[in-house]
Amino acid sequence: MMTRTLSELNAASVGEVVAALGAVFEHAPWVAEAAAAHRPFARVEDLFAAMRAAVRNASDERRLALLAGHPELAGRAARDGRMEPASVAEQASAGLDRLSEAEYARFAALNAAYREKFGLPYILCIKRHGRVSLLRNFEARLASTPEAERAAAEAEVLRIAAIRLNALVSGEGPLRTTGRISTHVLDTVSGRPAAGVEVELAEFVSSTESVVVARAVTNADGRTDAPLIGGRPVPIATYELRFSIGDHYRRAGFELPDPAFLDVVPLRFGVGDPEGHYHVPLVATPWSYQTYRGS
Amino acid sequence: MMTRTLSELNAASVGEVVAALGAVFEHAPWVAEAAAAHRPFARVEDLFAAMRAAVRNASDERRLALLAGHPELAGRAARDGRMEPASVAEQASAGLDRLSEAEYARFAALNAAYREKFGLPYILCIKRHGRVSLLRNFEARLASTPEAERAAAEAEVLRIAAIRLNALVSGEGPLRTTGRISTHVLDTVSGRPAAGVEVELAEFVSSTESVVVARAVTNADGRTDAPLIGGRPVPIATYELRFSIGDHYRRAGFELPDPAFLDVVPLRFGVGDPEGHYHVPLVATPWSYQTYRGS
Amino acid sequence: MMTRTLSELNAASVGEVVAALGAVFEHAPWVAEAAAAHRPFARVEDLFAAMRAAVRNASDERRLALLAGHPELAGRAARDGRMEPASVAEQASAGLDRLSEAEYARFAALNAAYREKFGLPYILCIKRHGRVSLLRNFEARLASTPEAERAAAEAEVLRIAAIRLNALVSGEGPLRTTGRISTHVLDTVSGRPAAGVEVELAEFVSSTESVVVARAVTNADGRTDAPLIGGRPVPIATYELRFSIGDHYRRAGFELPDPAFLDVVPLRFGVGDPEGHYHVPLVATPWSYQTYRGS
Amino acid sequence: MMTRTLSELNAASVGEVVAALGAVFEHAPWVAEAAAAHRPFARVEDLFAAMRAAVRNASDERRLALLAGHPELAGRAARDGRMEPASVAEQASAGLDRLSEAEYARFAALNAAYREKFGLPYILCIKRHGRVSLLRNFEARLASTPEAERAAAEAEVLRIAAIRLNALVSGEGPLRTTGRISTHVLDTVSGRPAAGVEVELAEFVSSTESVVVARAVTNADGRTDAPLIGGRPVPIATYELRFSIGDHYRRAGFELPDPAFLDVVPLRFGVGDPEGHYHVPLVATPWSYQTYRGS
Repeated sequence: MMTRTLSELNAASVGEVVAALGAVFEHAPWVAEAAAAHRPFARVEDLFAAMRAAVRNASDERRLALLAGHPELAGRAARDGRMEPASVAEQASAGLDRLSEAEYARFAALNAAYREKFGLPYILCIKRHGRVSLLRNFEARLASTPEAERAAAEAEVLRIAAIRLNALVSGEGPLRTTGRISTHVLDTVSGRPAAGVEVELAEFVSSTESVVVARAVTNADGRTDAPLIGGRPVPIATYELRFSIGDHYRRAGFELPDPAFLDVVPLRFGVGDPEGHYHVPLVATPWSYQTYRGS
Repeated sequence: MMTRTLSELNAASVGEVVAALGAVFEHAPWVAEAAAAHRPFARVEDLFAAMRAAVRNASDERRLALLAGHPELAGRAARDGRMEPASVAEQASAGLDRLSEAEYARFAALNAAYREKFGLPYILCIKRHGRVSLLRNFEARLASTPEAERAAAEAEVLRIAAIRLNALVSGEGPLRTTGRISTHVLDTVSGRPAAGVEVELAEFVSSTESVVVARAVTNADGRTDAPLIGGRPVPIATYELRFSIGDHYRRAGFELPDPAFLDVVPLRFGVGDPEGHYHVPLVATPWSYQTYRGS
Repeated sequence: MMTRTLSELNAASVGEVVAALGAVFEHAPWVAEAAAAHRPFARVEDLFAAMRAAVRNASDERRLALLAGHPELAGRAARDGRMEPASVAEQASAGLDRLSEAEYARFAALNAAYREKFGLPYILCIKRHGRVSLLRNFEARLASTPEAERAAAEAEVLRIAAIRLNALVSGEGPLRTTGRISTHVLDTVSGRPAAGVEVELAEFVSSTESVVVARAVTNADGRTDAPLIGGRPVPIATYELRFSIGDHYRRAGFELPDPAFLDVVPLRFGVGDPEGHYHVPLVATPWSYQTYRGS
Repeated sequence: MMTRTLSELNAASVGEVVAALGAVFEHAPWVAEAAAAHRPFARVEDLFAAMRAAVRNASDERRLALLAGHPELAGRAARDGRMEPASVAEQASAGLDRLSEAEYARFAALNAAYREKFGLPYILCIKRHGRVSLLRNFEARLASTPEAERAAAEAEVLRIAAIRLNALVSGEGPLRTTGRISTHVLDTVSGRPAAGVEVELAEFVSSTESVVVARAVTNADGRTDAPLIGGRPVPIATYELRFSIGDHYRRAGFELPDPAFLDVVPLRFGVGDPEGHYHVPLVATPWSYQTYRGS
């Protein structure tokens, strides 16, 4: 995958544009071709608007084919290597390439039921969903109506395309496709940022089970050098930040009880807006703490 | 088990005192007998001080026999029914009567190693310890010296006796053998106590695994009608209070995201002082919360 | 003033009841007399309900005379000694006996304007109002209508009577005429209540000027031995609690900067419900603090 | 006053350097002249180090003359127009040009006592002090020893010079002479920054009296567009931030009591480090708030 500037694309031939952006919409290079006719674009947003218009103005058959061309989640296309490379990466990011047999069977059943009911593959921008959210979405949409599902599926196709386009084109007015989870730790005994605090971020993959998805240590400013999740959508899920605050105060010379009143502090919070910024600080002493959704 | 008043015991015959309190020290009715000679007692504390003095003034053989007479934790005496009924209940309260084969084997190995090294059974006032603390204590004491262990074992015998005595005798000056875990929930959007909030208290039985040990719903004052743990020592352990605060705000008419930023809020804290009062409140809005060790 | 039990009043002659309670309604012993006919009363509330009914069932002339018989606030009756002793005490509690000449003139002008417009004295249960609230109430009611004012004045007469009755009669079901301001201080560096902290409570008597109305020092439980205001209505006003938290941490051995980041912490809050309980705690470290309306 | 770049000064003649920087040390252009010999300087810090070395290496007479040449605070030189323009501005910034007669007399008495005891004018970098701190410093130093005072006075001369130099020269490695007071407001009912909140910053000029020194309204990010104090030392003093949080929640549609529990929230804090960053946020609901020294 190669990133091009918007200027380069404005100056390129139609063929070059299709070569560069043809895979933004799965198996549908005609979208890039139609948009190319409206160049030049001042902003990436404008290019995407032209692609979206191309989809909306296409014939019903083409729009249906666009949906039909999408691979199933954890489906046969994935197993048989018939997906766009971007789809392969997207499904892998959600762990769909490492399902247990039972999970694979569950997806196969859901996929079959969905295709049976709507005549289309189930489409979801999986980069925006954690495991729990993905399954809830699948079941909710299975219970929906054909009209609502056509609209829902096309909205997901556009979300997928927006993320792909942002990765392929740089320039003014990028699409808003990324969110963030960040934190900072304040030690209100010393009145200073807490440096050297180990933090881990876990995602709940079921109502009780969580997996660690990021680890960091706070710097001199009490922050992590980079967001714990950033530069991509934050999957819709319940998360837990876990701070080794007992270690911090022991290092600072406090004699804490054994076990300490506060040792590992978990802050559990839900992310419902994958493009949002979730700043979740910890303000702590050895005997108290607080958090809030910050800014 | 029958509770007597201190006045009744002051007026009873020595034989009656021994019948009533002979099992306070395991297989050692002579302690009650020796203490009985010092009646009357104004306070339960004074009675206990007399029993403690009887132990301290006893011959070395008797003191050793007092320790030797204690049953092993999860040991053969428990299996064979050769324990005081109080010991049976104490071991059951810590779940030692429901061990898996692997756990039973681990205790058997620890018991054997301890007896091999010190010539005595390992003695611990198990009502004051959760599973993790019990095993840490066992391993720490196995690494100790004979002198230190004699002192440690006798201290545990006295702790066990204090709890038993408190249960058998009522009167002025009871022994301080109980702790407490309590909470209350404040809704700082409305400025009122949060009523009807489901709370559960879980104890960590390993570094990752927890079991729910109490459930309650807050009353109109934002408190639970009774402490979540009370009237007994709080086992040394890491605990987690879990508050269904998302449900509270949904009931109050808030439209929360899905998932809510705050749904179930866990407050994780350690108890190192089984006779302490741990008041752990939750002060919350849909987007923030705090806790502290209160009073 | 003498307190009688409800039982005594139930058993007394009508003349004794009138002697005891005749001054509950200013210059209107007929209210007590009428209520006496409905004895016995199980609860103080029932006695008060009977008095309220006597007022409601009285002729319009009597009800008007009841209002007309009330002394003006800071008015001539006060200067000439023609008020019930209870009225004298009530006006003194609001400082109306210590007005400057300018303030006296302002009250005189308001009283005259009110009497000119409504043909009645301005009546207010002044124990429920601070200085700012009193003047705002006076001006708001001066702008009201005669019908609304009749109702407002009678409601105030009943509030005054309820407080007087509660002071004169003890028994089951007392009237709810008292509120409370209380606090406690938590030191979240040590995880314990902060003892020995000097606290003062000031009331704002204008938008910028405050006067100290109570002082206390926190006890071992971090609380004051008694509420800062209690056993009476809390005057509607803006208050400020001021905690010498810098001194607390210096005593605890902290080396604070000069000046300390936190030295005297003011918590400013408004009381709009004189019969409410305002628990306003301080949870503090040398570098942070929080408060909330507690319970 | 004209700002020059460090490069320009490196390339200028000695005479030009003295013309530009001669007044950095009051009535002592020889300091700039001596430092000029050590050019070029890579950083402003290096230039200042050379000036400081010039002072330290000067004869005792010259160093004494440097101190003796300083104007008294609120003294005759100020009245008679015999101060460097920078001194005039510095004294005006502390309000020393607008003293009452009583205050002027107090300064005159302190100045006379100091000169009598030490044979030198009292020197203080007044930009780093509020009124209370200035008087406390004056009295503390009057009680000091001649040796300690020589050192203290020279340290103040260097602080004054650092601020003047920073204002005259731009370039790499500027001197650290500025501090900051900033804030932000979080509304934890909505989980968003509180926009449109009026904030004022007041400085206590006596133990009870405060004057407003800055006003602002929070922007969409809950912050003020600029620090409330910034780009200069923060005078050592006690400050109070006052937030119109009641207005915020009324605008948001909350029906608050009258008076509101929280209307204007004061956060009172001390600044002891004029070059420090004091970030003092407000995290609030209509019924609770908290603050801490942030970062």
